[in-house]
Amino acid sequence: MSAEHKPDRTARLAALRAELARAGLDGFIVPRSDEYLGEYVPPSGARLKWLTGFTGSAGLAIVLADRAAVFTDGRYVTQVAQQTDPAFWERRHITDEPPAVWLKEHAAGRRVGYDPWLHSPGGIERLTVAGVELIPVDRNPLDTVWTDRPAEPAAPAEPWPDRYAGRTAAEKRALIADALRTDGQDAAVLSDPHSVAWLLNLRGADLANTPLALGFAIVAEDAGVQVFMDPSKAGPDLRATLGNAVSFAPRTALPAALSALSGKKVRLDAESTPAWFDRTLRAAGATVVGAADPVRLPRAQKTAAEQDGARAAHRRDARAMARFLAWFRSTAPSGALTEMAVADELLRFRQREDLFRGESFPAISGAGENGAVIHYRASPSTNRAVRADEGFLIDSGGQYLDGTTDITRTLWTGPGPAMSDLRDRYTLVLRGMLALSATRFPEGVAGPHLDVIARRPLWEAGLDFDHGTGHGVGAYLSVHEGPAAFSRAAANVPLREGMILSDEPGYYLPGAYGIRIENLLLVQRDETLAAKKTWLRFETLTLVPFDRRLIATEALLPPERAAVDAYHARVLAEIAPMLDRPEDAATLDWLRRACAPL
Amino acid sequence: MSAEHKPDRTARLAALRAELARAGLDGFIVPRSDEYLGEYVPPSGARLKWLTGFTGSAGLAIVLADRAAVFTDGRYVTQVAQQTDPAFWERRHITDEPPAVWLKEHAAGRRVGYDPWLHSPGGIERLTVAGVELIPVDRNPLDTVWTDRPAEPAAPAEPWPDRYAGRTAAEKRALIADALRTDGQDAAVLSDPHSVAWLLNLRGADLANTPLALGFAIVAEDAGVQVFMDPSKAGPDLRATLGNAVSFAPRTALPAALSALSGKKVRLDAESTPAWFDRTLRAAGATVVGAADPVRLPRAQKTAAEQDGARAAHRRDARAMARFLAWFRSTAPSGALTEMAVADELLRFRQREDLFRGESFPAISGAGENGAVIHYRASPSTNRAVRADEGFLIDSGGQYLDGTTDITRTLWTGPGPAMSDLRDRYTLVLRGMLALSATRFPEGVAGPHLDVIARRPLWEAGLDFDHGTGHGVGAYLSVHEGPAAFSRAAANVPLREGMILSDEPGYYLPGAYGIRIENLLLVQRDETLAAKKTWLRFETLTLVPFDRRLIATEALLPPERAAVDAYHARVLAEIAPMLDRPEDAATLDWLRRACAPL
Repeated sequence: MSAEHKPDRTARLAALRAELARAGLDGFIVPRSDEYLGEYVPPSGARLKWLTGFTGSAGLAIVLADRAAVFTDGRYVTQVAQQTDPAFWERRHITDEPPAVWLKEHAAGRRVGYDPWLHSPGGIERLTVAGVELIPVDRNPLDTVWTDRPAEPAAPAEPWPDRYAGRTAAEKRALIADALRTDGQDAAVLSDPHSVAWLLNLRGADLANTPLALGFAIVAEDAGVQVFMDPSKAGPDLRATLGNAVSFAPRTALPAALSALSGKKVRLDAESTPAWFDRTLRAAGATVVGAADPVRLPRAQKTAAEQDGARAAHRRDARAMARFLAWFRSTAPSGALTEMAVADELLRFRQREDLFRGESFPAISGAGENGAVIHYRASPSTNRAVRADEGFLIDSGGQYLDGTTDITRTLWTGPGPAMSDLRDRYTLVLRGMLALSATRFPEGVAGPHLDVIARRPLWEAGLDFDHGTGHGVGAYLSVHEGPAAFSRAAANVPLREGMILSDEPGYYLPGAYGIRIENLLLVQRDETLAAKKTWLRFETLTLVPFDRRLIATEALLPPERAAVDAYHARVLAEIAPMLDRPEDAATLDWLRRACAPL
Repeated sequence: MSAEHKPDRTARLAALRAELARAGLDGFIVPRSDEYLGEYVPPSGARLKWLTGFTGSAGLAIVLADRAAVFTDGRYVTQVAQQTDPAFWERRHITDEPPAVWLKEHAAGRRVGYDPWLHSPGGIERLTVAGVELIPVDRNPLDTVWTDRPAEPAAPAEPWPDRYAGRTAAEKRALIADALRTDGQDAAVLSDPHSVAWLLNLRGADLANTPLALGFAIVAEDAGVQVFMDPSKAGPDLRATLGNAVSFAPRTALPAALSALSGKKVRLDAESTPAWFDRTLRAAGATVVGAADPVRLPRAQKTAAEQDGARAAHRRDARAMARFLAWFRSTAPSGALTEMAVADELLRFRQREDLFRGESFPAISGAGENGAVIHYRASPSTNRAVRADEGFLIDSGGQYLDGTTDITRTLWTGPGPAMSDLRDRYTLVLRGMLALSATRFPEGVAGPHLDVIARRPLWEAGLDFDHGTGHGVGAYLSVHEGPAAFSRAAANVPLREGMILSDEPGYYLPGAYGIRIENLLLVQRDETLAAKKTWLRFETLTLVPFDRRLIATEALLPPERAAVDAYHARVLAEIAPMLDRPEDAATLDWLRRACAPL
């Protein structure tokens, strides 16, 4: 925590407490999320950071008159301790010491407020305990005292061309309307801007790494859609493309629009929609039907055009990565680079590619022991030299107009040979990553059932990693997309044709090094089988060599060695022809050596 | 369906309808389960079979005045069609065409009765649809018309010695009472006779294959236990062992006992307890707390004594199996055996072993194409010759006083070499079975996450099997015991030290042959790792060679071949010394050859 912020945040906490007293509340709950309840929050919605200083991607604060606590999960124990002031904030583990238990202990008999825009009904239910009155507020008292709050982002929303989406917005509206009619529902609330983006083939620039136009929508069983966002975001091009069945109105029009649903059956996802919608609909006399966001599953199953786009984006991304890796191979042994300089250089290679729109997330560029920090982000205060003869982890991705990429490679800086224990463990991680990507499976199998395949070589050695094996990835949308994931903690959503997931096992030795190897996989029907049931397989989208200096070839079983060689042969066959400029001679030379059989 | 039963069942259905009319009901629901809601039902509780003729282990009938339907799952489609009369019974798939939908369609506006002793509250909830009134009856109308209903079983309940249980009943009562106090509950209803048996270290003989004394119990937070069963079952020995804190009363005493819980918090498992308890407790003014049976998890984690007992029982079972397999090897090529004769012979070998009390389930003895019928049971009408040069599947187990066994071996009858496609697929199944049994994993991993390991070799070949990979097994209790299972359909219950599970992948080619290979595994802490987290591994309990004529050695990876050899070496080292009688010379000779390195 830097010194100049300390007095500031103390004043903020005092101001909030004064405002609570004015409003007749004994306390207030400040979650990390904004009204879109997503992973990424624009500066205008960063209330938890403004109040506490904590910048992690998950957390919650509760402020009472005499005490206050911040709750985070295991990933952020160290970070929250560094970023918040212990004189004012108790720090709690959100699963071991849940907020509800803390409320029961410290807020018994008190009136604790919450902003119904910032919590789902399910989230509020988990905070509810006997003896504590939870009060939804009309106006967020934190917003009242946050006088210099940044403006909400208002970047223009633009059409995402049908040739990338593979399905027109009209077709998608008809598809979702059909699903609503089948389920006997009159309308659905879409509170996830990714769902609005998918449904209407629109993209925006309200967030740094995800091309969203923040807003809500209501889709009706007649396929009409009302969008609620600053109408100035929607220019004439977009409106013309979408036609008359799609209307735009400001968020202030939402109460009236929900009132108009009186007597109707309205579908609402109780885990991803602000409680405000649920309360307002019920007050208006609508019947709320709890069910998953109807866009969630179709969005995850990419169309043929989206699949082609993903392949093309990954080929260009692979060219940028090849140029980067050849550069790194020749530059890193000098010890003159820093983590931030490496990430900047990689971004420059990506910026030379067609259709590149920006990073899909801030690159994780970790040298040596920083590679073991799973959510590491190099900053001026942590930026470290990349030294000769150490491990280096780079996890990065691009937003391309035709697809979203995400790739991790673990590298050896050289010039000497890699340490044997790093090689041994890298090889275990690689074996797991390749085993999962080679898995063929029958329809009905879900991500949680396959996660173990990537872990088995590590488990055999008594090693493991403390994160899921992989997450879903959007089509020029979020790099973290539900509902499918390779994770024991994920829901049992059967994998379906067209889903894109990451396959990224790792191993982390704190204080020493981190290993993670990540390719993106596209779920495909396996047509080679003339069986009665439907079989699925993975097509690997990522086409970037592994660092052969880290592969303990002698530890590979014969089919595993053949799999590495086959992958490298494919990389060479697909990427070498794209390195046809004179200045690519060195990269091409490097690629040939990197892709030679082991 | 045999002809002499047909008129009988027609009369039964007519009698039930007449009784329903007398009782003012428009219909009645007849489930397969009795009041213990378990897998096995004594003749006195076989209402579904009495009414419909269907003998499968899961199903439900609904009788209306003008139509009636039997609902079963995919396993029983063929069987229910054979066993029930299409003139009177519609046959429905219980998940594709659920009973609630059928009720909605055919019983709208009608009063349909059910016996609250035979359904859980959760089960009734799933049958509930708008427009159909479900009426709990005080007296089951089917029982009224079932005039020659067999008497309820009343075999004596006997103490199960503490040296096998490893924990006295008093210790177990204290353990469960402690759990209730921790959860703030005053008492728990134990409606599962397995839980009563575990808690009080008592065993009975009310069912054919599971040593249960059927009855209910209430355990209180002061560790007192009231047992509700025919008091004549509990002899002086058992009563003396259990002491004064355990009382016995007939089931007719239950209403008064539940009334005495007025004002108390009573724990009740809504999925495994008859709705009668829930209704009666609520009517008595008790607060019903829905939670899992408190005995379920401790029961699954075997004590050190139970683990030792399981090892000893498996060694004796392995000797019986070795004698059986040596006999089969020399006798089968003649073609003179039948499936039933083989099962009888195996039973005779088991009966020669100490502490043997009976089969843990009716043996599945399937020759050739009958091996592909997953729940096959040879009967006089299906009993088939075991022919030379075909596949043969035998799945069987024993109840020993010190443990329960369950083993499947797939054999080649000889004398010629095995068909190559059978060998290839047998080898895939074997590789999966051994891979799962060799898996080491961190604490927190559940059965559904590991199921895939046994399937991967099959999946690679585009093959699969349509059942779970394995189930929990009791300690001189049920051969099917929850809550853990290697199955994607099972709950995510983390595996814990002391659990025993079967590992039994298979492959079935209908009309040709069936393959299944089953060993029992005991979950152990892996102490070889000096890691911060707890690691678990499996100890294989089953010690019986695989049929080497079915192993395609050339298809094994080197570590897989080493695993087969190591298993066989262990079998030989542990079982050969037990074959020390002169008449075992031939068995010992066979065992040495069966266990030689591949």
